[in-house]
Amino acid sequence: MADDKQASAGTKRVLVLAEGYLADPHHGKTTRGVVDYASFPVVALLDSTYDGDVFKGIPVVDSVTDALAFDPTTAIVGVAPTGGRLPDTLRAHVTASITAGLHVEAGMHEFLADDPELAALARDCGVGLCDLRRPPEGLSVPTGANLELDATVVLTVGSDCAIGKMTIALELHLESLRRGRRSVFVPTGQTGIAIAGWGIAVDAVVADFIAGAVEQLVVDGSALGDLLWVEGQGSLIHPMYSGVTLGLYHGSAPQLLVLCHKAGMDHLEGHARHAIPPLRELVDLHERSALPACPARVAAIALNTSLLDDDEARAAIAAATAETGLPADDPVRFGAERLTDACLGT
Amino acid sequence: MADDKQASAGTKRVLVLAEGYLADPHHGKTTRGVVDYASFPVVALLDSTYDGDVFKGIPVVDSVTDALAFDPTTAIVGVAPTGGRLPDTLRAHVTASITAGLHVEAGMHEFLADDPELAALARDCGVGLCDLRRPPEGLSVPTGANLELDATVVLTVGSDCAIGKMTIALELHLESLRRGRRSVFVPTGQTGIAIAGWGIAVDAVVADFIAGAVEQLVVDGSALGDLLWVEGQGSLIHPMYSGVTLGLYHGSAPQLLVLCHKAGMDHLEGHARHAIPPLRELVDLHERSALPACPARVAAIALNTSLLDDDEARAAIAAATAETGLPADDPVRFGAERLTDACLGT
Repeated sequence: MADDKQASAGTKRVLVLAEGYLADPHHGKTTRGVVDYASFPVVALLDSTYDGDVFKGIPVVDSVTDALAFDPTTAIVGVAPTGGRLPDTLRAHVTASITAGLHVEAGMHEFLADDPELAALARDCGVGLCDLRRPPEGLSVPTGANLELDATVVLTVGSDCAIGKMTIALELHLESLRRGRRSVFVPTGQTGIAIAGWGIAVDAVVADFIAGAVEQLVVDGSALGDLLWVEGQGSLIHPMYSGVTLGLYHGSAPQLLVLCHKAGMDHLEGHARHAIPPLRELVDLHERSALPACPARVAAIALNTSLLDDDEARAAIAAATAETGLPADDPVRFGAERLTDACLGT
Repeated sequence: MADDKQASAGTKRVLVLAEGYLADPHHGKTTRGVVDYASFPVVALLDSTYDGDVFKGIPVVDSVTDALAFDPTTAIVGVAPTGGRLPDTLRAHVTASITAGLHVEAGMHEFLADDPELAALARDCGVGLCDLRRPPEGLSVPTGANLELDATVVLTVGSDCAIGKMTIALELHLESLRRGRRSVFVPTGQTGIAIAGWGIAVDAVVADFIAGAVEQLVVDGSALGDLLWVEGQGSLIHPMYSGVTLGLYHGSAPQLLVLCHKAGMDHLEGHARHAIPPLRELVDLHERSALPACPARVAAIALNTSLLDDDEARAAIAAATAETGLPADDPVRFGAERLTDACLGT
């Protein structure tokens, strides 16, 4: 994703454009991911609908003009709407950011740089437009190199979208680094790419090349370390995104899976007719869906307990272990030690 | 796929460019599909490496110049190489076809019309370039309309690529038409599109939109009839294409599956390390992989017995039924009656 017009990592100061979605953990997940995990400073958040002046210690502003007081270099579009198109409400903020001299990064399926009006404006203003989801050139089908890696590959899978697969991969990666492991977070979506500075948004590649793109990511990742935490996407049971999920699974060729689930949800968010099967069935489905040449086992259950209080969360974790016989925890709430142990066998 | 520069169905006379692959049932599958099932006449086949002058009653020629004696209007590239790029050996024949005034249709991932040299030549020669795999504009994720169709949807799935999923869908569709049913073949790949004149190559769409594209196809198909035979792609156990397969499965939301298998193959073609599980396990995997909101059952096993003699074929069919408890047959060899009965419940 390198672009010589972008601010370098050392000087990058980010304004996140989160208009309308700062309070929404689903459609605002890019915002939250960048705020929680990016190595560059997030100096302001833009959401004129947000009820408050501060979010996680970061100033919340109503306009790009107000944000300039915090001296940003780059605006990141922090909203990932279904279908991946730039909402009209955000377009004005993007235009204002360009006009104010900020570089803009976005993860839509419709690329900023392919929009003649935005592209011309960016050229006039001397700023860069970085489309995090734009696939690299030269993708193809996998070569089989993914089956030959000298690395432990762990993929996060889940019972739904937007329940924490990226967060779990990041938390277990960070815990592994703390333990001195040569750990690598492998980004497969726009937020992961915004955070880590590399990766491919596998949902945006040509469908035939999903597994090939992911193979390229794990091959590249294995040059950086020998413990790869691959960011999962979608769900095998999601009516929209299951194809990406299975291609990502087979392309990353993991030995281990961490099954993520949002405790308390019995159907897909926004899809009441799509029931989520019991955890033990999901474990079974995921293990059976491995390529015969590359068996994978579910090493642990990662619960997102954000709907529960502490006691309920502990009870849900105990119930998940009782149901599946697997270690379970909520790494965001209770720390990543237990699930990291489960994956590393320590 | 309509293009007003193309010859209309009534006058279209096709030369298939099959250079190097006429004898190859895998990489020449587009050629064979068009020869066997298209409603327009195929007047010549081009393969300078083919040992013979006639293939299935159609003249085989060495060059476009030689083909002109048969008065073609359109050249179809009949080769579908892995990765979807136009082989150099075929490029010269494409150029010769354009120069000779033929429209050209092709199903590569790299589009003819995006090749500046070919596009300029076609413009100069007044012919059309039709990229069968080019996705339509405006695709997105599914809306749920696929779960509301007033139609029986049957999807062909398989143990490998290029073993006959399109052929089985076509054979059962044609048998259903003979029975007076309002039957529709739903094309999902370049060969099916070349044959039927509509469809979307779902392996060429943006990965996030696989299921959405297929939903659009079954919705469109349900306007044409109430019995839809959806052309399957790839395999849930294929290391390259499984993502497309699952997205196609969930997007088409079938009630019934026909499981296709090439009798005698115990591993994926060209992938010796990828074993094919027993048929009963494949039946189970496919039924478990249905969306919880849209259960699907395997109605029948379609065996491709082309590696076997008649007695061996009958034995393989009996063995498939014994193993799975399901009706089995090779519709190409023994007729489509039995598998059509199995799907229609008659």
